[in-house]
Amino acid sequence: MSEKKIPYKIYIDENEMPNAWYNLRADMKVKPAPLMNPGTHKPMTAAELEGVFCSELVQQELDNTTRYIEIPQEIRDFYKMYRPSPLVRAYNLEKKLGTPAKIYYKFEGNNTSGSHKLNSAIAQAYYAKKQGLKGVTTETGAGQWGTALSMACAYLDLDCKVYMVKVSYEQKPFRREVMRTYGASVTPSPSMTTQVGRQILAENPNTTGSLGCAISEAVEAAVTNEGYRYVLGSVLNQVVLHQSVIGLESKIALDKYGEKPDIIIGCAGGGSNLGGLISPFMGEKLRGEADYEVIAVEPASCPSFTRGKFVYDFCDTGMICPLAKMYTLGSGFIPSADHAGGLRYHGMSPVLSQLYHDGYMKAVSVKQTDVFAAAEEFAKVEGILPAPESSHAIKVAIDEAIKCKETGEAKTILFGLSGTGYFDLVAYQNFNDGVMTNYVPSDEEIAQSLAKAPKID
Amino acid sequence: MSEKKIPYKIYIDENEMPNAWYNLRADMKVKPAPLMNPGTHKPMTAAELEGVFCSELVQQELDNTTRYIEIPQEIRDFYKMYRPSPLVRAYNLEKKLGTPAKIYYKFEGNNTSGSHKLNSAIAQAYYAKKQGLKGVTTETGAGQWGTALSMACAYLDLDCKVYMVKVSYEQKPFRREVMRTYGASVTPSPSMTTQVGRQILAENPNTTGSLGCAISEAVEAAVTNEGYRYVLGSVLNQVVLHQSVIGLESKIALDKYGEKPDIIIGCAGGGSNLGGLISPFMGEKLRGEADYEVIAVEPASCPSFTRGKFVYDFCDTGMICPLAKMYTLGSGFIPSADHAGGLRYHGMSPVLSQLYHDGYMKAVSVKQTDVFAAAEEFAKVEGILPAPESSHAIKVAIDEAIKCKETGEAKTILFGLSGTGYFDLVAYQNFNDGVMTNYVPSDEEIAQSLAKAPKID
Repeated sequence: MSEKKIPYKIYIDENEMPNAWYNLRADMKVKPAPLMNPGTHKPMTAAELEGVFCSELVQQELDNTTRYIEIPQEIRDFYKMYRPSPLVRAYNLEKKLGTPAKIYYKFEGNNTSGSHKLNSAIAQAYYAKKQGLKGVTTETGAGQWGTALSMACAYLDLDCKVYMVKVSYEQKPFRREVMRTYGASVTPSPSMTTQVGRQILAENPNTTGSLGCAISEAVEAAVTNEGYRYVLGSVLNQVVLHQSVIGLESKIALDKYGEKPDIIIGCAGGGSNLGGLISPFMGEKLRGEADYEVIAVEPASCPSFTRGKFVYDFCDTGMICPLAKMYTLGSGFIPSADHAGGLRYHGMSPVLSQLYHDGYMKAVSVKQTDVFAAAEEFAKVEGILPAPESSHAIKVAIDEAIKCKETGEAKTILFGLSGTGYFDLVAYQNFNDGVMTNYVPSDEEIAQSLAKAPKID
Repeated sequence: MSEKKIPYKIYIDENEMPNAWYNLRADMKVKPAPLMNPGTHKPMTAAELEGVFCSELVQQELDNTTRYIEIPQEIRDFYKMYRPSPLVRAYNLEKKLGTPAKIYYKFEGNNTSGSHKLNSAIAQAYYAKKQGLKGVTTETGAGQWGTALSMACAYLDLDCKVYMVKVSYEQKPFRREVMRTYGASVTPSPSMTTQVGRQILAENPNTTGSLGCAISEAVEAAVTNEGYRYVLGSVLNQVVLHQSVIGLESKIALDKYGEKPDIIIGCAGGGSNLGGLISPFMGEKLRGEADYEVIAVEPASCPSFTRGKFVYDFCDTGMICPLAKMYTLGSGFIPSADHAGGLRYHGMSPVLSQLYHDGYMKAVSVKQTDVFAAAEEFAKVEGILPAPESSHAIKVAIDEAIKCKETGEAKTILFGLSGTGYFDLVAYQNFNDGVMTNYVPSDEEIAQSLAKAPKID
């Protein structure tokens, strides 16, 4: 253990930044199950996937064996504009809680997208540009991914079509305006611009939309427009790969001071932030070199890990995407409109799902009023106004730090502060006004949407 | 000149951060004129000022001779939560412009207030706390100062009453919500809660408010509430002192790489950001140790330097504050409601006013549509969505870099990127929709409001 005084913020140098992403799958004994063709129920081939995704991203998606994949120089140059992100020692939060625990957080909010999403957005946009495409299509929920992709596309001069979940589009007009400022077109989903959108609206004209539905529209727009491919900000293996930069930087920073986390905590929606944060640590755990307690935190209103099933399911409402084996609440599951912020996807990264299934990590679900209370406590002492998503991790980090206070254990806690809450002030206002509710789906609701999952083995 | 490769972002280490603020006045041959009592037209004494301001801040306000003033440890600890701020080499902007110029910007937006305002907010809140006060009152225009003060007060457990210029209060409901999240009370100004507010509303019921008016209300609230003092985010000498941390860090970072700016550019509203950025450089210039071209950039709709007069004037609409000798448009001047963002104060820091008067710096005014065009160009290549205020500096930095392209000169340009534009998306939307206008006040309008200035020497 080093005796060096640990600063509030540990920045690694630009030349210490990772040159390669770490591919967690290479160290998994049980690999994540392959994506399946929704028609044939057979594993998707690279050729099939290339109709939807860029070729090089398909290779990354299917690569379960290469441990390190080099980050192209152009992407590293872009990373240098907003990375390394700081690893912050939460001295003030520790003091406020009176805990013997040491709390660190990796803060990914110091860029205009306000979150970690930019790490994968620039990678996906880069490979699209390299392939000579005109543009990309995508969906966005809370708007962080859409903003990130708009920024990456503006930088590379690629066209960008974003389908934004209608409830977010209406609650977050400013998000739309940021994307527009970066030159993207933004359509509220479901929309009349796609066949799948028209069908969903015909069945349910008052729907506030869902990520699953927006994905269907974005995929349709990609396959029906010449020179476009679809990109996705979470769930996919390639996204966990790109996001490994979060964990790699965290580990380099901690190693500088001889620090090793006992507990690693991240919020989990589709798994991009959590998967990226834990990657190198989980790699050590899988290889038996170290042990870490890993905790995924999800909203009680969208509890894929804690109340979903580990089965093959559709990734989208329109059922046109490949099937993934994952913890899922059913592709028709839409969290109640009272649910604030992101983490609203019905499924979960197949990589994380397999690890959870195999006992390498835990999951807990938390109520959103508790999440916002933790967010405000954190904001007042640490300065940063956190995203509601990230605040799920804050809530559990505080809980663990309080447990340490009770037991007297000086554990080292690392959590992912994946983004800022500047665009979530309607939710903060509801919380401040005491009108925020805590919707929890019923067992029947979940069973009903799960019943539509395809029956595969 | 060092041969070290200059990274995209230069972070100085925590232990390299300044331990003292630099007091520019100590090196000025002609000191800024003293604040005057509005009743007697005699210089304000410390005792008189202490009715409005905290005692230790009064000392700092009046101290024209101490070159370095130590930053208390508690403030340095707070600074460590969000400082050092990065000094960014704008490689991508340089490339986009095809300029031989080297462009650097000091980015102060990486904190929840979204701007440099936190640097002085924590200092002023600290001295209020140290004096045993219950709380502080203030005004805010664009909302950055109010947010910063709310954050500082939440951290120190001080009460915080903010009077927010009505037009901003209405255009930026989220700003209000951030302040509320940090526990502040926020009142749109002019309001019925103060005598001066009631009087202004009686005379002009449809006013959208002004900084000058909000100042009057905040001062009245401070002097009529036991245990409260007034704090101000700009204009005052003490603010330029606290903000010197921006320039000091910039200089330390540049010195590491043997870099020396030829041109230093900052936006100027009340002068807090510009004054802070230029402080140590201007110190060298005043002492004859180095030369720098310093450019203040102001909006054409509120052109204090370029079209105002250098006279004693009221700092507030209600004419209850001390008088300051400064470049002013008259205390009744209210920029047109079409004017977006901050930089809407009728006056200017007495320190900067004196320096400008004595020929140590230049000033230019720019149209807001040009400012937003520069902002979007910058955002696309540098990633950061800039505040409209900061974009005034961007506009002129780009102009100077293009001049370098034309002349072939490889000048080094440093500008202040004082904040982010996340809360300014109504203005961006207007610009994107092509409905933003460029109001420029008439000579008559300025002459009319200047006619109300008190006649002193």
